[in-house]
Amino acid sequence: MRVGLLTGGGDVPGLNAAIRAVVKRGEGEYGHTIIGFRNGWRGVVDGFSLPLTRQHIRNQLAVGGTLLGTARYHPHASDGGLDAVLSTLESERIEALICIGGDGTLHAASKVAEAGVRIVAIPKTIDNDVWGTDQSIGFDTAVTIATEAIDRIHTTAESHNRVMIVEVMGRHAGWIAATSGIAGGAELVLVPEAPFDIDKIERFLKHRHRAHASFSIIVVAEGAVPAEGTSMHYETPVGKFGDIVAGAIGERLKAEIERRTGFDTRVVVLGHVQRGGIPTPVDRILGSRFGVAAIDAASGGQSDVMTALRGERVEMVPLSEVAGKVKYVPDELLSVARALA
Amino acid sequence: MRVGLLTGGGDVPGLNAAIRAVVKRGEGEYGHTIIGFRNGWRGVVDGFSLPLTRQHIRNQLAVGGTLLGTARYHPHASDGGLDAVLSTLESERIEALICIGGDGTLHAASKVAEAGVRIVAIPKTIDNDVWGTDQSIGFDTAVTIATEAIDRIHTTAESHNRVMIVEVMGRHAGWIAATSGIAGGAELVLVPEAPFDIDKIERFLKHRHRAHASFSIIVVAEGAVPAEGTSMHYETPVGKFGDIVAGAIGERLKAEIERRTGFDTRVVVLGHVQRGGIPTPVDRILGSRFGVAAIDAASGGQSDVMTALRGERVEMVPLSEVAGKVKYVPDELLSVARALA
Amino acid sequence: MRVGLLTGGGDVPGLNAAIRAVVKRGEGEYGHTIIGFRNGWRGVVDGFSLPLTRQHIRNQLAVGGTLLGTARYHPHASDGGLDAVLSTLESERIEALICIGGDGTLHAASKVAEAGVRIVAIPKTIDNDVWGTDQSIGFDTAVTIATEAIDRIHTTAESHNRVMIVEVMGRHAGWIAATSGIAGGAELVLVPEAPFDIDKIERFLKHRHRAHASFSIIVVAEGAVPAEGTSMHYETPVGKFGDIVAGAIGERLKAEIERRTGFDTRVVVLGHVQRGGIPTPVDRILGSRFGVAAIDAASGGQSDVMTALRGERVEMVPLSEVAGKVKYVPDELLSVARALA
Amino acid sequence: MRVGLLTGGGDVPGLNAAIRAVVKRGEGEYGHTIIGFRNGWRGVVDGFSLPLTRQHIRNQLAVGGTLLGTARYHPHASDGGLDAVLSTLESERIEALICIGGDGTLHAASKVAEAGVRIVAIPKTIDNDVWGTDQSIGFDTAVTIATEAIDRIHTTAESHNRVMIVEVMGRHAGWIAATSGIAGGAELVLVPEAPFDIDKIERFLKHRHRAHASFSIIVVAEGAVPAEGTSMHYETPVGKFGDIVAGAIGERLKAEIERRTGFDTRVVVLGHVQRGGIPTPVDRILGSRFGVAAIDAASGGQSDVMTALRGERVEMVPLSEVAGKVKYVPDELLSVARALA
Repeated sequence: MRVGLLTGGGDVPGLNAAIRAVVKRGEGEYGHTIIGFRNGWRGVVDGFSLPLTRQHIRNQLAVGGTLLGTARYHPHASDGGLDAVLSTLESERIEALICIGGDGTLHAASKVAEAGVRIVAIPKTIDNDVWGTDQSIGFDTAVTIATEAIDRIHTTAESHNRVMIVEVMGRHAGWIAATSGIAGGAELVLVPEAPFDIDKIERFLKHRHRAHASFSIIVVAEGAVPAEGTSMHYETPVGKFGDIVAGAIGERLKAEIERRTGFDTRVVVLGHVQRGGIPTPVDRILGSRFGVAAIDAASGGQSDVMTALRGERVEMVPLSEVAGKVKYVPDELLSVARALA
Repeated sequence: MRVGLLTGGGDVPGLNAAIRAVVKRGEGEYGHTIIGFRNGWRGVVDGFSLPLTRQHIRNQLAVGGTLLGTARYHPHASDGGLDAVLSTLESERIEALICIGGDGTLHAASKVAEAGVRIVAIPKTIDNDVWGTDQSIGFDTAVTIATEAIDRIHTTAESHNRVMIVEVMGRHAGWIAATSGIAGGAELVLVPEAPFDIDKIERFLKHRHRAHASFSIIVVAEGAVPAEGTSMHYETPVGKFGDIVAGAIGERLKAEIERRTGFDTRVVVLGHVQRGGIPTPVDRILGSRFGVAAIDAASGGQSDVMTALRGERVEMVPLSEVAGKVKYVPDELLSVARALA
Repeated sequence: MRVGLLTGGGDVPGLNAAIRAVVKRGEGEYGHTIIGFRNGWRGVVDGFSLPLTRQHIRNQLAVGGTLLGTARYHPHASDGGLDAVLSTLESERIEALICIGGDGTLHAASKVAEAGVRIVAIPKTIDNDVWGTDQSIGFDTAVTIATEAIDRIHTTAESHNRVMIVEVMGRHAGWIAATSGIAGGAELVLVPEAPFDIDKIERFLKHRHRAHASFSIIVVAEGAVPAEGTSMHYETPVGKFGDIVAGAIGERLKAEIERRTGFDTRVVVLGHVQRGGIPTPVDRILGSRFGVAAIDAASGGQSDVMTALRGERVEMVPLSEVAGKVKYVPDELLSVARALA
Repeated sequence: MRVGLLTGGGDVPGLNAAIRAVVKRGEGEYGHTIIGFRNGWRGVVDGFSLPLTRQHIRNQLAVGGTLLGTARYHPHASDGGLDAVLSTLESERIEALICIGGDGTLHAASKVAEAGVRIVAIPKTIDNDVWGTDQSIGFDTAVTIATEAIDRIHTTAESHNRVMIVEVMGRHAGWIAATSGIAGGAELVLVPEAPFDIDKIERFLKHRHRAHASFSIIVVAEGAVPAEGTSMHYETPVGKFGDIVAGAIGERLKAEIERRTGFDTRVVVLGHVQRGGIPTPVDRILGSRFGVAAIDAASGGQSDVMTALRGERVEMVPLSEVAGKVKYVPDELLSVARALA
């Protein structure tokens, strides 16, 4: 059997673990030929592919990024994209296609599945907002990097009596902010799920800096927004995809807080650092388990499904249940962040 | 309300996150007084306690170990131990007791609960074998440390054409071995759940080193045992608690492999390094969530229960369901380890 | 003997190692009383001090920041500042003052020494540009953090065909940029010592992305400037102290490169993350050695000197030789960065 | 010009940085052909070589181990070894040979140089005992790993009231023990340079555990020995090469301390973990600088020299000055370790 494989969307650590698992299991257990497409759906459209063998995956388990390359290209969103995909899959005689990606890639995958292609998807996103799975590849590494940064900022904030704002990724859901905020002991965590009240923040900071503490760390997701009716001197972008620019909310919060409190405030935008480097064991294991489960499912004839972590088990969920939904941070986690501030 | 708190058994990273959460939530939300007992159950028996305040938990979130100290002492296993516990709890007017610990501590906790004390338990063990919860505090940090060690050994093994044996913790269940083996890309993973066949290992290594590879990494849990009927030249201890000595299985495997294959074989026993240092975000978050959930449960009148991670939720499970059971590594995880060797 | 101790300027990891060494050695070997001043020279002016004992330095060796706090205040630059310093030192009966700091703090120290106070200085600065010593406290940790960030960006840059700009600290000298650029395998390193030619950078990037590579990493010190006569569309600040704003040169380079080449270009400004967290062993050891050497020198009656690393030895250099000089990155190091691009 | 390149002795992190620098600089600046020999001198004897190009060194800068492989084989110590080396160098038309190694490799290199071959050596050893250079490749990474381990053991030791012994590498000189001991805040550091007095250790531990502290960390180099005349119940091997077995001194100290004090004592033998993994920035930079300097020296006609770090400069020292000498830990460093215990 010839099985196609692609990675789409932003890269995250742990992708190579999944690629390696698909290749090792596909070759070793089933004797499949694994055809890797370069640069996500772009490579399928362009017919840019290579047969993946054990040689390609050697020493890749602990390497971040994706050895296949990736791109933010969605075939269903561009003229003739879908036809080009189907044409390549036919000429390459691909019997099943494993797609590793986030929201956009999964959406494209379900469109391709509708056209009759056997599709198994694997969720990855550092935002962790793919519905239907406890966790997506890349999230744990991003949280680890963000927490390390907050740990570092902690010591410098304490030495200088400052308000430090750490802006982390998270457009629609604040998973990284909530978890790294808890892990890093942040005083405030601002997430898209719960629009913030800048007046309350002002009161909190004034009270805290008057009362006892001499520094505060605020972790803010890039997609966090002020509550409606809140009057902010500086405009904040609203949470529509595409409107969110790295650094925007961090810089505006800084300006607003300095204006209102007069406290020395600094902002650190973690940016691309969150996407890179050595995957944590959790992401390597998740990638490995998802890779094995995906090739097993594809070999067993399943289609239009996604691998999902559910507690301690890896299960398959229908892509149709996943598409178009965002997995928000549950209230319990947000309330832990608040309780420990 | 006066709430007692203790940490028992071996220390693990993440305990201070739980202690901090109990104190912050207990004080901040409920106005409780938290009484910390030093050195586990030992401190309850001896009446060695101190009121824990925000001052004690400052800057402790990212610190390994336990600020309360711990000991491997079980009151129900020693004459008069249980009575002394009850007497201290009474004289200290403790209305609820939060016990953070593994197997032994939980067992003691359920005995104390039987005597009418309101008990809420929090599971911790780097072995991750507490039944009823997806994960226990300390496990993720231990896996991270073990994986880092395997990563390091990887580069040196490759440079020297060797068989490297890495012995990790895991008396009754091979969680650390299985997960760090997958994450580190080990060639063989040996766990207590699946007694190993030394003849097969010999054949595998000979085949592998003849065929293509020039090194092999074997990750072995300290509690791994040879299959019955296997003839090993060197004796291995059998998996009865107390018989397991750090380094024993690693050294014996090394001797056996060298005798059978002649390959240069080295062993690294990770030992106490696995228990220490900065907790990973996962363990800090788990500790924080369990701490909040435990004090909420105790304040709400629950007793004889343990906090448990179930998928994305924290739930309470009856201690009676947990006691005396071992959570083994599921087959899916073991088969992933095997598939990717 | 009563010995004063302060940390001034920006905080860096390794300060607590030096404080600990001064206290342990001062108490243990000489029986001195160590008086710590809070928040740098500010605390001397305000008489904000505390006797430092072994209790204060417990578990501080591996903690970033400074337990004494710090401030960017220079007594000689403000009316009556110097008099207030002398008055506090007299009323506190300080016989010797150990000042840990960078450029500004050392300058103030030499002014106070001129007024007859016994002064021993310890150099710290993540910029590593203090003259007279091979290395200053904090530099190695900053390089380690910057290199880690470049490593992470490497994997994501490779996956996406991008130009990535990493802006690191370094106002007057490009030590962090040069060393982390070499360690991280950057394609281009821009430092204040060697004004850059944007036309050459354009040609280099175009050639490289056409020829073979699909990504480039540029490490730029915040104080890097374009060569005179270079026409840049976007203005860059020139290297006068105070004009350098974090993020400025990075953002402008990004705009300029995108305008000239059309390549997708991203910028990461490491910022305060470089200052924080756990000191590397090198910084802990340097801090410890400098601390011991400083208290030994002060006890032996030396004054107006600074501890300095010279090869494998710690020596004392006259503060007068150090003041007002900047230690630039040597040509050999810059040429290694260029040779390995 | 055809330049040979080999790595000999035990592998350390940072070797690939040096290999990369030799290849990049050799090709880029001089147009040389670099011939890599596999497995140290073994590969020269066997004629096992490959032309090294930019392709081989891609993404190797941050990878531990050596892409050339290595072996502990010394041609001058085996019959016909030297002749075979000369014969291969002639048939391969090698005009200069760059040898990266420690003691043994450097000794062999000087023998080959005597036979008329142009030799430039690069020092590497995690023991840091090569004479003539402030630092050798691999040392900083080993110290970092050892310090991390001590940090981890610190938290677990504190929680349990124990004596923890950490055995690190260092046969003839105690560089890793002294530096990681200072960095990790060890209570005792035992090195080959200063034979230890077990009676003093006993008194120290008894005093310390009685007085105030509840745990002690002892860092011991594998080559540490008891002072003559000391009566130890358990034998310790004496510091003759070959007699030193990993774990021996650690285990014996443990037995002796438990016998004398009754304190619960645990030993961790770091072993091969110290050799592996990602090189620190210091080791990558040192490897890069040494590699560039070596190819420059070889191209300039120098021979029988070794690259050396002297303060901030890289210089060349005659191999004859280096051979047969051991660089011991200076007294200042040992006294800092003692002062801060």
